[in-house]
Amino acid sequence: MGSEALHEPKQRPAEGSLAGFESLEKLLKAYVPADKLREVTRVLHGFNQGLIQNSIKAPTTAPYHDQQQAIFKRVRKLINAAGEAGVKILCLQEAWPMPFAFCTREKQWLEFAEPADSGPSVRLCMELAKRHNMVIVSSILERDEQHGDTIWNTAVVIGNNGNVIGKHRKNHIPRVGDFNESTYYLEGNTGHPVFETVYGKIAINICYGRHHPLNWMAFGLNGAEIVFNPSATVGELSEPMWSIEARNAAIANNYYVAGINRVGTEHFPNQFTSGDGAPAHSAFGHFYGSSYVAAPDASRTPSLARNKDGLLIADLDLNLNRQVKDKWCFQMTGRHNLYAKFLNDYIQLDFQPQIIRDPSLQSRQ
Amino acid sequence: MGSEALHEPKQRPAEGSLAGFESLEKLLKAYVPADKLREVTRVLHGFNQGLIQNSIKAPTTAPYHDQQQAIFKRVRKLINAAGEAGVKILCLQEAWPMPFAFCTREKQWLEFAEPADSGPSVRLCMELAKRHNMVIVSSILERDEQHGDTIWNTAVVIGNNGNVIGKHRKNHIPRVGDFNESTYYLEGNTGHPVFETVYGKIAINICYGRHHPLNWMAFGLNGAEIVFNPSATVGELSEPMWSIEARNAAIANNYYVAGINRVGTEHFPNQFTSGDGAPAHSAFGHFYGSSYVAAPDASRTPSLARNKDGLLIADLDLNLNRQVKDKWCFQMTGRHNLYAKFLNDYIQLDFQPQIIRDPSLQSRQ
Repeated sequence: MGSEALHEPKQRPAEGSLAGFESLEKLLKAYVPADKLREVTRVLHGFNQGLIQNSIKAPTTAPYHDQQQAIFKRVRKLINAAGEAGVKILCLQEAWPMPFAFCTREKQWLEFAEPADSGPSVRLCMELAKRHNMVIVSSILERDEQHGDTIWNTAVVIGNNGNVIGKHRKNHIPRVGDFNESTYYLEGNTGHPVFETVYGKIAINICYGRHHPLNWMAFGLNGAEIVFNPSATVGELSEPMWSIEARNAAIANNYYVAGINRVGTEHFPNQFTSGDGAPAHSAFGHFYGSSYVAAPDASRTPSLARNKDGLLIADLDLNLNRQVKDKWCFQMTGRHNLYAKFLNDYIQLDFQPQIIRDPSLQSRQ
Repeated sequence: MGSEALHEPKQRPAEGSLAGFESLEKLLKAYVPADKLREVTRVLHGFNQGLIQNSIKAPTTAPYHDQQQAIFKRVRKLINAAGEAGVKILCLQEAWPMPFAFCTREKQWLEFAEPADSGPSVRLCMELAKRHNMVIVSSILERDEQHGDTIWNTAVVIGNNGNVIGKHRKNHIPRVGDFNESTYYLEGNTGHPVFETVYGKIAINICYGRHHPLNWMAFGLNGAEIVFNPSATVGELSEPMWSIEARNAAIANNYYVAGINRVGTEHFPNQFTSGDGAPAHSAFGHFYGSSYVAAPDASRTPSLARNKDGLLIADLDLNLNRQVKDKWCFQMTGRHNLYAKFLNDYIQLDFQPQIIRDPSLQSRQ
């Protein structure tokens, strides 16, 4: 107990903390001696080289407009801080202008949906992008007024001159417990666009798309240099995956990945169930933040806090992408012809998997 | 320094150790208090639930037959231990019956190549598979006598009755520094076979193929329940990737992955260069072992040692694959049609990436 007592946090563990610490890195730093920590970090993170995660700022029972304005006030402050620090490309978390109400299956939350070219959050980002000469990736709930008011989960890319460059709609939609988002929107129809901005070529893999290696691949083959992954995911569901998938995508596709997760626990006015036999409840878990950037050379930054709003700033040397590509040759050795044929066979109704059965086994009953 | 002194290893760090510890897990266990370590392990590994890694056993200057027999003696002992412990499916590391001599670019090492159905290592595995009622995956250097003595990097699957079920040839061949293996063999021509054994459906993604998500995907779509990744990779090159790629594949494809890495530093009689400007040398780094099993629910086992031979035994509940699949729905939401079309477009010579350029930027010079 001797060595533990030296480092023990004085208060009770804060809600959403990791055994009393705000991130894994801070916990390890408290206990592992510095010379050993260097080696631990080398294996866990590789050698090291703006994202904003925010909690909601008004109760979900407040009028929608008040909820929205409270978030806008907070995020405006964070974006201004990023701008003053010289951030050139900024990404916000998934559906940042609203509570992540999709667990409720209630339709009134669609009040937060807005047109991708002119909604209130878009106008805010246009103003701030222009002021700070900054590209902003803003993930919103979109209402497509040109197509029958259809709802989409959409990322809007705003250029450094304050103009909307374009949008991308979430390609893969979860039906996982509380994340049954297909109640509200379906699979996106915008392909895998890469947005060429003054600061680099960027793409957006929204939330659940991070579980789909083909989605990451397509952004890479279209030339992305940085892929943002605005997310909203809770500890019980995905935390051991969070440090894996973004890094794997960065390694496999020779680009940077910036994973941004929502933070905080959100309580809703009406109870709901989660299809897992548990009693009805009004919150579905802690969004664990932990935003970070992964590089193509397998290194990564530390995480933002697990339980606090935060702005992460990282210097990304985009030349590293091609240096790593030339070293590892994943494009050259990728055999894309083989996989184009494989997938084309797979999608046929009469696809037969390539299975070699042990001939010494008795035939099946 | 007080708390460090309690745990400091008494000897100088052993060669290949991680700051004096034989694995990351043992290092963390020495410093992080038990109640904190549970949380660290939850985030790093998920909650937890036979592989053999071996060093070579005779100098590379010994007669080839003596080198081979020395390895056979050691591996026979390890396989017998696995059999007595009740292991049902066993995988050995990449090219286990020989030193990993491909860094030398010398052709005499092809003396270790053997036919996939009747070579000396295959006969050894057939004998032991039958004795222990065990499936063995044996990764060898193959000489294909039926096709002009062509050399391949091949995994042979031996059934529990001691029969060869079939073989798979490495799909993706590296040209990375010392791993310029295309000096010896080219891309495999066996597709993505899944071998149906009495204990389950298995596939083999050999070494560098672990960097290719499409390779992992194809084994999954063909029905694999466990994919083995027999490897030979050194610390300087890939160590921060090692804990990422196998786990990502297990998560994305809803199967178990067993990563097996060679262990030890191998010295060769003649010096060679590595195309990186460094002086000529006779060893190209430390194979860091660290074999482990990753599960589809994002959990993993601890690693075998970084610097010692080892046998890892893990209980794999194959029902977990479908349980996770039904929960996360990656197959259902995978949009394979979209990607079949994407890849088919990509492989055309006139492919045009989907790029949306900021119209407010000046036209390119």
